[in-house]
Amino acid sequence: MSYFRENIDEMAGYVPGEQPGPGETVIKINTNENPYPPSPAAMETLHGLDGERLRRYSHPTARAFREVVGRVLGFPADWILPGNGSDDLLTMIFRACAEPARNVAYPMPTYTLYRTLAEIQDAEVVEVPFGEKFELPLDELAGANAAVTLVAHPNAPSGTPMAPEQLRELASRLAGLLVIDEAYVDFAEYDMLDLARSHENVIVLRTLSKGYSLAGLRLGFGVANPGVLEGLIKVKDSYNVGAVPCAVGAAAFQDQAYKDACAAKVKASRARLASELEALGFRVWPSAANFLLVRPPGGEARRIHESLKERHILIRYFQSPPLTDKLRISIGTDEQNAALVTAIREILGGSV
Amino acid sequence: MSYFRENIDEMAGYVPGEQPGPGETVIKINTNENPYPPSPAAMETLHGLDGERLRRYSHPTARAFREVVGRVLGFPADWILPGNGSDDLLTMIFRACAEPARNVAYPMPTYTLYRTLAEIQDAEVVEVPFGEKFELPLDELAGANAAVTLVAHPNAPSGTPMAPEQLRELASRLAGLLVIDEAYVDFAEYDMLDLARSHENVIVLRTLSKGYSLAGLRLGFGVANPGVLEGLIKVKDSYNVGAVPCAVGAAAFQDQAYKDACAAKVKASRARLASELEALGFRVWPSAANFLLVRPPGGEARRIHESLKERHILIRYFQSPPLTDKLRISIGTDEQNAALVTAIREILGGSV
Repeated sequence: MSYFRENIDEMAGYVPGEQPGPGETVIKINTNENPYPPSPAAMETLHGLDGERLRRYSHPTARAFREVVGRVLGFPADWILPGNGSDDLLTMIFRACAEPARNVAYPMPTYTLYRTLAEIQDAEVVEVPFGEKFELPLDELAGANAAVTLVAHPNAPSGTPMAPEQLRELASRLAGLLVIDEAYVDFAEYDMLDLARSHENVIVLRTLSKGYSLAGLRLGFGVANPGVLEGLIKVKDSYNVGAVPCAVGAAAFQDQAYKDACAAKVKASRARLASELEALGFRVWPSAANFLLVRPPGGEARRIHESLKERHILIRYFQSPPLTDKLRISIGTDEQNAALVTAIREILGGSV
Repeated sequence: MSYFRENIDEMAGYVPGEQPGPGETVIKINTNENPYPPSPAAMETLHGLDGERLRRYSHPTARAFREVVGRVLGFPADWILPGNGSDDLLTMIFRACAEPARNVAYPMPTYTLYRTLAEIQDAEVVEVPFGEKFELPLDELAGANAAVTLVAHPNAPSGTPMAPEQLRELASRLAGLLVIDEAYVDFAEYDMLDLARSHENVIVLRTLSKGYSLAGLRLGFGVANPGVLEGLIKVKDSYNVGAVPCAVGAAAFQDQAYKDACAAKVKASRARLASELEALGFRVWPSAANFLLVRPPGGEARRIHESLKERHILIRYFQSPPLTDKLRISIGTDEQNAALVTAIREILGGSV
């Protein structure tokens, strides 16, 4: 007898993007971190925390943080559920809603963790291909009518935003939960929070990892009506959000002006980098996120990824179709982006 | 159709101990926090963290922390798996190992989260009563031969240590995993780490919440052979331990002298409090943890709990048998313990 459930023995597990070791100097634009530091207000809060905050258990639902988020976004606090990163919210949703008789649907390609989480629950998965321009396969997703349907807006790894009217129609046609994963929405032109207000079956997920430069803090949250959140609270770890993310996250979230200023810089850099790569013959999908999905000329994706790595520049390459001819590049500072373009120019030049 | 799985709709969810609001002045001896502050080395690390640590994703298995733990405990680093509190390790174990056809066994009463986690997995539960002195029901647990067997050493809420030779025999007789939950072992006379070394099916859980005064940090770990840990890694959240717990926890764990000094104070206070309560007619179970399970005279448990609360002293009362005539009291500072005894004396005096 194995120690583990059969589906766990059979699955491979999620593989996170590469993390350089301490002291390695690299241009790290492979896991969509924000190139700018966290808000000074957040750092000040971190450095002012006293031992009493660590000695005691944190509040089970991170009250201080959910109150700040509710105030900023215009929701009652009990419509906000914090988690140990938005991955923790995804875990709660799968644990509470997915099982062999309750399936999961999402368009492909998207965040590969969705499949891993379905495998853990041994739930059937309906994977519907996006259109070539990453248009949402609305009818197929609605037709699957899964217990849990997930759509990332903007989508990863394409960066493409979803059409609001399509998400609204999808929410109306589904009987199960619609999860709108807005991990990257801080770099987009619009969000879908209103759908959580108008549709009982919609939960919108957010993270402080990208827009707020706090990937290492581990803090995200879900926005949904309290009835849905109550079910998720049953399956969450009792003290899933620590005192540090609660306090530091509240300070960061209150500093919307800083977040917006960083996002504006990222968006300007994104436009420049897109033009420069297009000038080198890349196809670039229109991005509303802090990364670009690109297809290099001449089927060179894998070689460019490897050659950049030799030059200490990490970007993301995915091994599975339809992504094998594409690369995902996080938007760095303008200096980092310029170094990237120079390196790519050299690599492509060397192949001619 | 419900949004949730049937077992989730049916379950109640775990109820954490009461947390006073900010600014409320209470003697909080209800959730087994350490009364002493965290190690100064840990606080110095916290206050020295730079924004770069928060901006980037943390290491997926909290490498720096597991290396420190391995060094201190004498295990290779890949025998250590950190989690967002030891509750996170329990979650991993249940997600990876428990399901309707794979049952779970533990002695009762114990940490009530075990039942909640089994309910989430819809796994059958075999609950075997402890003896009246909280002796381990070895034969019944071995006979159940569950996919996952859990024993807390020392047990909560009794505080009683388990006999090492009994745990060793249990490990040998079980085909499934034996989880030895050592959340409170920093206040005990011996630990069971050797069993993880000698028995492939044993995982020992530890937390920094109690011995290291870091309940709000959320950091725990499991000790087991890498084969077992690999299965658990498949089901853990990708970045389950943030950069702050990783760094602060490493500093705290290296400071064993500070932890030992605090534990020595707690143990001395525990002995004094036990004598004082016995002098008031309480039955006190022998505790190897930082709390006491006690039975007040005259069946007064519930009234004492309520009367203490009116006096801003929080202790723990459990609603279900065989605990309804008992109270669990976390060991506070000597001042807090003295205030508790004074208050109890008043309350009992008032009832005569």
